[in-house]
Amino acid sequence: MTESIQPDERIVETAMTLADIARATTREYFRRPLDVDRKADRTPVTVADRETERRMRECVSERHPDHGIIGEEFGVRKGESDWTWIVDPIDGTKNFVSGKPLFGSLVAVIHESTPVLGVIEIPCQEERWIGMRGRPTTYNGKPCRVSDVESLDEAVMLATTPDMFDDADWAVFQGISRSARARAFGTDCYGYGLLASGFSDAVMEADLEPYDYMALVPIVEGAGGIITDWNGEPLGTGSSGHVLACATPALHAEIVSLIRSGRPASP
Amino acid sequence: MTESIQPDERIVETAMTLADIARATTREYFRRPLDVDRKADRTPVTVADRETERRMRECVSERHPDHGIIGEEFGVRKGESDWTWIVDPIDGTKNFVSGKPLFGSLVAVIHESTPVLGVIEIPCQEERWIGMRGRPTTYNGKPCRVSDVESLDEAVMLATTPDMFDDADWAVFQGISRSARARAFGTDCYGYGLLASGFSDAVMEADLEPYDYMALVPIVEGAGGIITDWNGEPLGTGSSGHVLACATPALHAEIVSLIRSGRPASP
Repeated sequence: MTESIQPDERIVETAMTLADIARATTREYFRRPLDVDRKADRTPVTVADRETERRMRECVSERHPDHGIIGEEFGVRKGESDWTWIVDPIDGTKNFVSGKPLFGSLVAVIHESTPVLGVIEIPCQEERWIGMRGRPTTYNGKPCRVSDVESLDEAVMLATTPDMFDDADWAVFQGISRSARARAFGTDCYGYGLLASGFSDAVMEADLEPYDYMALVPIVEGAGGIITDWNGEPLGTGSSGHVLACATPALHAEIVSLIRSGRPASP
Repeated sequence: MTESIQPDERIVETAMTLADIARATTREYFRRPLDVDRKADRTPVTVADRETERRMRECVSERHPDHGIIGEEFGVRKGESDWTWIVDPIDGTKNFVSGKPLFGSLVAVIHESTPVLGVIEIPCQEERWIGMRGRPTTYNGKPCRVSDVESLDEAVMLATTPDMFDDADWAVFQGISRSARARAFGTDCYGYGLLASGFSDAVMEADLEPYDYMALVPIVEGAGGIITDWNGEPLGTGSSGHVLACATPALHAEIVSLIRSGRPASP
């Protein structure tokens, strides 16, 4: 039972250091002259991704040798304890590669299977959301809170790209998001920060990996919001990658109900 | 014949002042507490739009009483001269309303029917692109240049949202953009700045208005790029609103050819 487990100060410090490392390292590579990057690899983002993750993993290994680490580029390192770090050095590689400064870096701390700490770091914007189980989420050091929007027709809804949905999911997403007050694309993890700060009201996405969404759970919940899969079930490392985050229970219930009626079978 | 006409220093100064006004005014309204905005109007962006355009028009009227002005909110004021200003105080209202800091403000100066000066101002980022007929485009005061990408499979391609395409255009856009190296959404006018600076290689959009695209022409062309409608024809105030901007002639020709073969009839 991990309900009452909270990360200690040393873990919190490490999480902040990881966000600092991500901020500094990704910016070294962002908007580098294209010809340089093309020659090296044709996908400059990969170089930045690997170098950032390498530095983040080094920091965790040094400070918490018994903790596990999961990252996109270098896979899983099992730990000797119940603690696992999940890092995503660049969430929003298409934003990164196109020169858009809204890509982010994600850090999640998992105790057993529960995400107890999450960080969304937006390096170029110097914006950072920190969520900790049982504490209010902060935005650049100050508590933040979701909006009080309770119905879809008043909600501003976000998603990263149509490319994350298969045909059936796209049909469901279209039906729902077109009934929202407004919808906007291109957000990646930034969208969940905007939700946590009350600027947007819902994010509905698919095809996400645990390193994309585990950090978001304590952030959205600590800001008073709800984040689940499309069936309304809690997110875990074994989830389908369908994520629905909402400002209020009423908005969440409305969208889950629309998803149910729009999908013949749950994935 | 307006080929050789260039804006004089007084016009350039006015354009900079308008961008300054847009930067300051839109930021007054950005991320305002939602409850305040909801009570007032339910679309906070409208208040910001109107107030910004009002201040921009005042500035033009005062400095150039004989020039015409066209804006989204307050329509057309005919001028006594061959000069017309086209302003769009907030390009990217969905970005604005969702708290994304990439919305922009646009200023175009038209002589007879030729756009001779354009400004993309990104208020929250303090980024500004300035294009003048016959001069190199600048990004925050320094000359900038498009990339040298010549083929779609190497190109990073941008568009704001699927919502700008009707079903037929969406099918064409999908076929083309899915062949690109990467595609990303959510850019609005920022995408054309990223193109002018060589970070992205193509922007393909539809359903734009003259106040959305006239400012982009001198910026993209002055950075060495090409901007036309989907048929490869020059953009004018009477264009269909289909816009294609590319880094190189080869890339432009490839995409125009794919558009032709993908569309049964030109709009």
